[in-house]
Order: sequence, then C-alpha cells, then structure tokens
Amino acid sequence: MTAFNCDYAEGAHEKLLKALMDTNLVQTPGYGEDAYCYAAAEQIKKICGAPDADVHFLVGGTQANLTVISAALRPHQGVISAGCGHISVHETGAIEATGHKVLTLPTLDGKITAAQVKAVYESHIRDSSYEHMVKPGMVYISNPTEYGAIYEKEELTALSQTCRECGLYLYLDGARLGYGLTASGNTLDLLTIAALCDVFYIGGTKCGALCGEAVVITNPVLKPDFRYLIKQKGGMLAKGRLLGIQFLELLRDDLYFQICSHANQMALMLKEGFVRKGWELYVDSVTNQQFPIIPNEILTKIEAEHTFSHIMSFSGDRSVVRFCTSWATAEPDVREFLKDMKEW
Amino acid sequence: MTAFNCDYAEGAHEKLLKALMDTNLVQTPGYGEDAYCYAAAEQIKKICGAPDADVHFLVGGTQANLTVISAALRPHQGVISAGCGHISVHETGAIEATGHKVLTLPTLDGKITAAQVKAVYESHIRDSSYEHMVKPGMVYISNPTEYGAIYEKEELTALSQTCRECGLYLYLDGARLGYGLTASGNTLDLLTIAALCDVFYIGGTKCGALCGEAVVITNPVLKPDFRYLIKQKGGMLAKGRLLGIQFLELLRDDLYFQICSHANQMALMLKEGFVRKGWELYVDSVTNQQFPIIPNEILTKIEAEHTFSHIMSFSGDRSVVRFCTSWATAEPDVREFLKDMKEW
Amino acid sequence: MTAFNCDYAEGAHEKLLKALMDTNLVQTPGYGEDAYCYAAAEQIKKICGAPDADVHFLVGGTQANLTVISAALRPHQGVISAGCGHISVHETGAIEATGHKVLTLPTLDGKITAAQVKAVYESHIRDSSYEHMVKPGMVYISNPTEYGAIYEKEELTALSQTCRECGLYLYLDGARLGYGLTASGNTLDLLTIAALCDVFYIGGTKCGALCGEAVVITNPVLKPDFRYLIKQKGGMLAKGRLLGIQFLELLRDDLYFQICSHANQMALMLKEGFVRKGWELYVDSVTNQQFPIIPNEILTKIEAEHTFSHIMSFSGDRSVVRFCTSWATAEPDVREFLKDMKEW
Amino acid sequence: MTAFNCDYAEGAHEKLLKALMDTNLVQTPGYGEDAYCYAAAEQIKKICGAPDADVHFLVGGTQANLTVISAALRPHQGVISAGCGHISVHETGAIEATGHKVLTLPTLDGKITAAQVKAVYESHIRDSSYEHMVKPGMVYISNPTEYGAIYEKEELTALSQTCRECGLYLYLDGARLGYGLTASGNTLDLLTIAALCDVFYIGGTKCGALCGEAVVITNPVLKPDFRYLIKQKGGMLAKGRLLGIQFLELLRDDLYFQICSHANQMALMLKEGFVRKGWELYVDSVTNQQFPIIPNEILTKIEAEHTFSHIMSFSGDRSVVRFCTSWATAEPDVREFLKDMKEW
Repeated sequence: MTAFNCDYAEGAHEKLLKALMDTNLVQTPGYGEDAYCYAAAEQIKKICGAPDADVHFLVGGTQANLTVISAALRPHQGVISAGCGHISVHETGAIEATGHKVLTLPTLDGKITAAQVKAVYESHIRDSSYEHMVKPGMVYISNPTEYGAIYEKEELTALSQTCRECGLYLYLDGARLGYGLTASGNTLDLLTIAALCDVFYIGGTKCGALCGEAVVITNPVLKPDFRYLIKQKGGMLAKGRLLGIQFLELLRDDLYFQICSHANQMALMLKEGFVRKGWELYVDSVTNQQFPIIPNEILTKIEAEHTFSHIMSFSGDRSVVRFCTSWATAEPDVREFLKDMKEW
Repeated sequence: MTAFNCDYAEGAHEKLLKALMDTNLVQTPGYGEDAYCYAAAEQIKKICGAPDADVHFLVGGTQANLTVISAALRPHQGVISAGCGHISVHETGAIEATGHKVLTLPTLDGKITAAQVKAVYESHIRDSSYEHMVKPGMVYISNPTEYGAIYEKEELTALSQTCRECGLYLYLDGARLGYGLTASGNTLDLLTIAALCDVFYIGGTKCGALCGEAVVITNPVLKPDFRYLIKQKGGMLAKGRLLGIQFLELLRDDLYFQICSHANQMALMLKEGFVRKGWELYVDSVTNQQFPIIPNEILTKIEAEHTFSHIMSFSGDRSVVRFCTSWATAEPDVREFLKDMKEW
Repeated sequence: MTAFNCDYAEGAHEKLLKALMDTNLVQTPGYGEDAYCYAAAEQIKKICGAPDADVHFLVGGTQANLTVISAALRPHQGVISAGCGHISVHETGAIEATGHKVLTLPTLDGKITAAQVKAVYESHIRDSSYEHMVKPGMVYISNPTEYGAIYEKEELTALSQTCRECGLYLYLDGARLGYGLTASGNTLDLLTIAALCDVFYIGGTKCGALCGEAVVITNPVLKPDFRYLIKQKGGMLAKGRLLGIQFLELLRDDLYFQICSHANQMALMLKEGFVRKGWELYVDSVTNQQFPIIPNEILTKIEAEHTFSHIMSFSGDRSVVRFCTSWATAEPDVREFLKDMKEW
Repeated sequence: MTAFNCDYAEGAHEKLLKALMDTNLVQTPGYGEDAYCYAAAEQIKKICGAPDADVHFLVGGTQANLTVISAALRPHQGVISAGCGHISVHETGAIEATGHKVLTLPTLDGKITAAQVKAVYESHIRDSSYEHMVKPGMVYISNPTEYGAIYEKEELTALSQTCRECGLYLYLDGARLGYGLTASGNTLDLLTIAALCDVFYIGGTKCGALCGEAVVITNPVLKPDFRYLIKQKGGMLAKGRLLGIQFLELLRDDLYFQICSHANQMALMLKEGFVRKGWELYVDSVTNQQFPIIPNEILTKIEAEHTFSHIMSFSGDRSVVRFCTSWATAEPDVREFLKDMKEW
C-alpha cells in the first residue's frame, strides 16, 4: 500500500536527519540566532540574488502566512487571494483571526491575474462607500497553486507591476516552491521571484524537511521588527537550529531541487497513466500534485490499496481526486500502482 | 433638491427630540441602567412576546453586528451571510477584525435559503479537512435585506429550523426592520421573529432615531455577560438614556410602524413612477429602498437636482441605483420628483 | 436628592438640544461628511492652532481610545499608561481586544512622568530578550486624570520630548479636557496640547454633550485611512451630524469652557466643605472630580440622600469616594448638600 | 566554554533522534493523526491517570499558551498570572494578540496563591463597575515557575479549589515540568496535576526534545474543537509525527524524568558552588534554573568563558543572573566551571 494522498507522509530526507545527528551536541544560542540559521539565511540570500533580504525560518506554512500577512497589513486592510487559496479555505480562518479579511477572486486552477487584481483595486477606489469596505493591501498567490499550476514569468511580472502601481504588497506562498521551479515548462527562478515579490517563502515541510519554511523579505518596509511578530504568533522555536540545519542541507548541492524534480517525475508518470486510462484531468498540473477525474466505482477499488485525497464530486458519478508524490516516492511503487491501474 | 440617497439624511422624528428635551435635567444612572432604558426594554419584550429576553441598546448597526457576532462565536467559528450582506461588504471588515470569517452565499436580492445553509453546513461536516476550515457557528440575515427584499414567514421558519438542526445561531439584522414589518405583503411580525431567531435587533438609526439599535437576545446561551462585550467594543454610551428615551417614544402609540409605513408608501410611489417610465427594477422591493435600472444619461440629469446612490453599472449604458425614503420624506417632494421625471 | 456620582447624569446643555431641533429637517450626507461636522472640525483646528490637523467625531471615549490606539500601533506594540488609566482598568480590555498590551506605570494621582516613560523604553531596549517583550509604541495619558489631576505645561513638554526621542506617539485622552483647561492653576491650553501631542481628543460626553468626542490628529503619520478604522470599530454614526452639531454649539462663544468652569467651581465648593469637615483628600484635585476620604458610617448617611462613587476602602474604617459635578450642577443643590454635611 | 544560559542550547536526546531516523520512511497520515501521536497520547493519559483526557501535541510553549488560553476564554475574559509569568512578560503580547488581558499578581518567585486569586476574583465581583473591567476567566501558573520554584501539593490543591469555587479554569504551564516533578522536595505528580488542573502541558522543548509540548485537557468543557484552534493559530504540523515520535521516546522507560533529574543534579552542584562562594540566591530554586546574585566585576570574568542569562541589576553593583542546566549538561563541564569559580 502506497500513500499518494499528500507530500508529507514521510519524515525528512535522510541527509537532513544526519545533519541533525551530527550537530546535536553543539551548543548554540536559541530562537534562530545560531550559526546554522545564519548560514542558511546567507545561502538563501545568495541563491535569490538578494543580499539585502531578511530571511526568517518559521515552523509551518499557516504560521508563515498568518505572520507575514498580519505583519504587513494595517487593521482595515485585507489580502486578495484566489478563492481556492490556502489562506482562504484551509487555514481555519487564521488570517481573519489576526483581524484581516481575505478578498477572493474566482479561478479554476488557483492562479489569479494582474487584470483581476487591477479590477478589485479600482472598484474599491471608485466605490463611493470605499471607507465602508476593506481596503486591499496585499496580494497573496501560491506557486505552484493548490491545484499544482505554475505562474509564467510574464504573469508574475504583470502581477508585480500591477501591485506596485496600486500600492499592494505581493506575497508568494512557496509551500511547494521546489516543485514549481523544477517543473517542465517552468519559466521562473528564485532571482525573478525575489525581484518581483515583496515577500515570499521557500517551503521546507512539503519539500523534504521535517518542518520549516524560509520567509524571504525583500521589501525594506516589511523588515522592521519581524522577529517580534514571529515570537508573538508562536512561530519562534527555542531550538531554532532545527530549521537552520535542515535548510542548510536542503540547499547544499541543490538537494532541494533534485528531490522536488524527482517528485515531479513520479507525478508525471502517474499523470500519463491517468491520461492513458482515459480519465480527464481537472487541471493540467505539471508539478507533484495531479488531479484526475475518476469514476467513483473505480475510486472504491483504488482506496482499498492506496490513499489519495478527495477534492470534490464531479458530474457523471465521478470525483476530482488528488494524487501527490514527494521526495520519498519510490519509482517501483509508482510502477506497481500503474500496473494495478490497468485492472481497474 | 430632495435627497433620496439614504434613510438617514435628516435628524430624528420630532417626538423623540421633544422627549430628549423634556427629560433633559432628570438625573439618571449611566451606561444604560436608567429608568428610560429599562422601560423601553420592557416595552420591547412585551411587543415581542418575549418576557425572558434580554434587551440592550447599542449605538449603531455595525456596532451591534460586531458585538453580537463576536459575543456568540468561538474563535474558529464563522458566520454565514449573503454575499451582499452588510457585514460582508459594508462594515470595513468589522467582523473579521473580531477574528471571524464571513462565509458567503450567492444571492440576488440579499435573501438566503435554508437549503443553502444546510448545504454549507453539510459540506463542512463531510469534508475530510474540516478542521482546516472555519466552522459555521451562526447565520446572519437582514430583513429587509440590503436590496429591500423581505423574508416570508415560511422562509424564516425553514431557516430557523435548519439552524437549530445544525447547531447554528440565527441572527437577524433589523436595521430597517420597521420598513419590512409594514411592507405590503409582509407575513412576519415581532413575535414570530423573536420565536424563530436567537438574537436580532430592531433598528432605530434608519427608522427615525438619531442613533440606536435595540438588540433582543432570546436564546439564554447568548445572554451572559453581554454588557461586558458592549463596553469592550465601545458601544456602551455613558448617557445610555439617549437611546432608551428615543426607543420609548418610537414604541409609543406605534410611532415606529407608522413612520416606516409612511416611508414605504413614498417608496412605492417612486417605484410606480420608475415602472411607468419603463425602467426595469433590479430587485422587486416592497420596502423603502428601490433599485431601478436607469440609463446613465438620464442619471446625469437626475443628479443635477436630487441625490441617490449608485449601486453598480449594468449592461446597455445603464446603472442600478438606489432611491431611499425615510420617516421625513414629504409627499409633495415625491410628487415634485415624479413630475420632473416625466421630462427626463 | 442630588446625584454627585458622575458627570453624565443629565442630558446635554440646552443649547445643544436646541441646535439639534433647529437643524432637524435639513438633509445632509451621512457618516460625518456633513456641513456641521466640517464646520465643527474647522473650528477645532482653529482653536488648536492646527490648520493641518485631521478632526474626527467619535461617539464615546472607549470607542475613541480603542480606535486611535489600534490605528497607530503595529501588532507587537503596546501602549504605556498609568496603572489607573482608563484604558487599563475601566474599558473591559478594549485595547487588548484589538490585540495590544497596556504597559502600566505606578502612580498615585494618575499622572505619569517623562522619567518613567524613559525608563520603560530603555529597559525594553537593553533587555536581551527584547523581541520576546511587547515593544512600547505609544504613551497614553489623560488630562485631567482619572483622579482629577492636571499636567503642568512643563510636565507635558517633558513627556512629549521623551516620546519624540524614543519614537513613541503621545496620545492625550481628554474625556474631561474642558475641566482641566479651566481649572485653577492650569498652565495648559489647546495650542500647547496640539503642539505636544500626536493625537488627542476633546471630550464631549462628560462635558455637556449627549455623546461625542472630537479626535484631533496632528501627526501626519497617523492620519491616513483613519475613517476606515472608525467604521470598522463601529464608531461611525450614520447620522454623524449628531456629533458635529453638538460640537459646533459647544465651541460657540466658549460655551464648552464656561460650563466646565462652572462645574469646577461647584466642585471646589464641595472640596472646601470636605476640608472644613476635616476629611482628608486622596488626591488634591482642582477639577470637577473630588476624592475625599470619609468615615464609612458617615457615607451610609450621605447615600441616603445623595449619590457618589465608591473608589476604594481606606484605613480606619474610611473609604475613598468620588464626588463629581457637571455643567448641570446647580449651586443651590451644592449649598444644600454643604448644609446637610454639617449634621453628619 | 560551556553554555549555561538556557536549557535549549543543544539538540534532542539521542534516543529521540534515533527514533526519528528509524521511522523516517514509514508513511503516516498528517496533522497529528498518525499512530505515533496516538500512542504517545495514550501513554500520557495512562501516566496521568486520565483516560478521558484529550492530548494534543503543539510545537512550542508560546504556541501552546496562546492556543489554550484563547480557546478557553470568551472575549471579555482575562487570565490571572504572576507578574513575572511567561505569558505576561516574555511572549511579545501573544495573549493580548488573541484579545485577552493578562491580569497580574505580585510575586517574588513566580508562585501565586489561592488567597491572591480569591482576592482578585472578589474585588471584581464587588466592584460597582465590574462590567467595565475584564472578567477573570482562567488562572495561569507555571511549574516550575520562571524562577525555578515549585508548587507544593497543598498549594496547588488550594488553588484548584479556589478556581472551582470562582468558576475559573486552572491552567498549568509545564514547559519545564520534568524538572519540577523530579526536584528534591517535590510533592506533586502527574496524577495530582491532572486531577487538579483543567488543562496543562508537559514540556518537551526544554526537557530534551527538538520541539514539542503535550497539552492535556481534562475538563470536558475545554475539549470540543480544540484541533480547529491549533490549526488556526499555526501550531498544527503537517508532519505531526515529529512530535508524537519524540514524546513516545521521552516517555519510554521514564527517560523524561531521568534526564530532567540529571539536569537538576547538575544545577544543585552549581547552586552549592554559588553558596560556598558566599553569593546570595535571588530565589531558592530546587530545579534546573539557578539565580545567584553575583558582583558585576566577577560576571565580566565569567562571561569570558561561559554564557549565562542576565536577569536584573541588583543593589551593590551586583546582578541577578540565571544559570541553567539541561539533559545534555555534562558533569565534567560543571566540575570544570566550579573549579574556575574558585579563582574569580
């Protein structure tokens, strides 16, 4: 039985665990002010071409999102997001709990456009009761999106330009950034992201670490006192080294990109299998999450032997489901699954 | 020039001002614990047939909404509302600022149905990541709605029943309740509302008072410590008598219903005029707000002499606009407007 | 029986009520954008010598405090206050409800010093775990204080200078400002306050209005988008004119200062009576609140005929109590009280 | 050079790391719903004698505190704490950021008494403006306290009884619980704590784990929907197993208590050295934190070779400092330090 339901079913890449072992007895200052965190931050600034950026390590994605967004916005401001954005749907109202509305835009694959952002902004400005409405202050995007889609460089450039014209911060949630940057057809890289966004994070938890996300702040306005916010929101680990050590290893010799690329390849094998089988894809994802539309009676058979995630019911007694691969997904297990598939 | 843009363009009905004058030098305890507030509360309990209800006077509608909702919900719960609900669109994120998400339902006229509520609730229960999603805790409706529509008794009964089955509080925003209860075709009354809702408010500000809304809590679970919440949220007037005295007058000899009924009649005269003119109505409102769809070039002419509210652009170079009447709208002014209309 | 328990036992000065009557049928825009509010704001800017200030009318003191403070601070910042400060003790945690800690300083009469503020600020800076502690962002003072004391010009100047050195906003709560500025020995005036504070408010509710406080923002950093915050926190009245009209009258021909001066005189008559009687004063107040320390057995006699506020128990079977006068306190009633006093 | 500044200078006990290694490739469900978390929870319920308790694993202490407290309180309620309590001083206002005031009590060693709690509660009830004040809803204590002191069984029993009489929840922060329960003279155990408190947590981060705290909820009222709150506040790890696996190891063969006992012994060796040297102790701690008062000139010499924490300046050119031991403190290093001490 192989779990394809998520990309956090296993522990961490073994090199990360080994590094934790090797450094275990070294005494360090707490709260992320240790040499490992500093070195990892330097490395991240280097590969982002952003020597002046601030880098902070937070424990998880919801934590990163709520800390970044509440640090950036004034009380009357809201954050624009895709309707299916993680902050809008799957964080139990974490953003609202910090006082801010999530202003949603319709989308199929989780991507939003510069034109949509512009329209929201302008409708706010033009409305005679604008002071009675939440003021847009930030745009939140995820890359890849919750549906595995990736932004083109042109799309991100347009979003960035619109945000700057409208005085909106652009924040990119990179929970699965490694999968996006190593996807077939990807036109983005860290330097471009660092140049176009005001703040973003490089995801660790879903890309091979036990936990941890690296928040990169490039806009100087957003830098002051960020560590206060991390502490207040409960995201500052006493043993901050746990995150620094892992990121140091992930970034050594491009391990991060290698393992994400591997997961993408495993996902594409699954995708080809689905297509061969004649199943439609809800979204044409090029990353480690795949969204086939599968007849319910077949799903019953699959789930006897494998796990996947149910996304939504679909017409014709079918369902959109999610199959996910990770750094740990073994090619033989995928082949086995594909073989089984033929019988369903 | 007559203002039709809102129902709060004038001061208060003169009987209310007179009562303020007459009682001015009487010394009373502060913070709503005076004899006027107590008497007004008793009167409200009586006409609602709810002797055990708690009645509190708050200064305005947003204040009432944010206090009631944040008093009732636990931090992870949200409130279900029409997409065009006042709390969703026109309170600058007041509800989110208290930590709670507004879960919106699509609607044309501002009314939501029991079936919609049931569907949201069930989708929450069924979803495998339900703990990652905001839990519905309350249903917010307004009667009349932001588009002037009113709930049928059957509709409210069905909503109430669904809420009770699902463990959701039902809250009715009655900012314009007087207009709803005196509308042609209305099937609701205060007794029914008090019996079907867990909490609601009888609006004063938009129905002839200088300010003030009377929150009526019928569900005993929602009663404890409500005054702490009023104070914390800034809604407890030192001179609480200002609200009690006004409500006492509004409720004396049915003044409240008389003045609202008058406003409805004035609105219906406008409505007939719009229809006669061949202008479509965005919503078929029976209350004091009317929403004609008017060619933009004509709007330019109207606004030279009268005020109204722009709601949204519409196809064919037309716009949906709002015309509003109040207790103070004079029939000669309406007739004058209707006469002018012929020339446009 | 005369109530001396507070300065909000009556309605409003009759000139204010009359103005409400006289303007009642004039149609105005809502939400504080009417000609009365604009004129009152202009008048306030003029008497404050602050032509560039922003003036906003809010409904009450707690509302003003929570809106100003939450508008000014970032989430990790707190506000420094006297331990007996209104925001610290008597607003049901309104400031904390917006997410901010109140950092308290010990004081007897409610006044805090520049040296105390400096010490708090420096201890924060020096502490090695400063990021684990709330960062001071604002200083809150009230003038007169909750114990009727007033700041000397030199004291306020020193506070202001320290705040500017430390990057702290200085906010003055003027709920009873009129009493302070007309007190015997007062060295402050509106121009000085406007020059030394970043934001302050001129209290209406406790100085002769039905309700209403005029927030004056002189620091340009604090101005943007303040109306959004008023709306979000529930402090924006639909009929904002209610506040503008009252302030216009209060400021006409110095009515505000005349009625406050009258109240002070009445309070000083009471004070002399207390002293003559041999009762100690908890604080040597020069404003409309007096704090005698009275034997409990005598209090029992007093409260049979008059109301006052119990503040705290004191040694020797005595209690600190508060006697308060207002614009409406009549000299004959005070004389009557003083005559009665002789028998106790 | 040995670091004595904190108990989180190293990684985790090697058995925990080994268990992470051994289980690394096992696929599990996410978000704390894996077999390791379940088994660890069962083990905790067993050693607490609380089969009906709910056990949740959170990532750190601030996270645990803010989640527990905000889950338990209504918006107008506050939490009573020692003035030096962690939630009051060293969590950057995390509790206030969730909307709740921390009501502080004076204390020298961090312990508060039943009598103090009773007094706060009664003063709230008696005060005529009680609705204008934050209502106490919970009592927060830490054991050991921030100054290393431990509660006697009688003291905790009295606190618990008072809390139940007053309708206050009792919450024990056990960030260093292992050190307290293995301290010389300790009279508490897990069964007693589980019986007397409504909710408490067993600290992992400061007792040998990489991170993680086990929240134990015994009061049924506090159980519902707690996982929603964990998620909302950002404390729910996707790879929740990281916490379950570590706690399983900590609880195997009493490892948790052994390593904490060891740290206490190391701390007592330091304490004896300080006393021998003639240095006063600020608090007579029996746990792994020691607070000697040391002349500043000697501190300068010590810090050339060792780290410790500065707590506060003291009279006579001395300072209160903190020396801390952990599971990893080696006896030879302590002996070396004691030998060095003789020369200072």
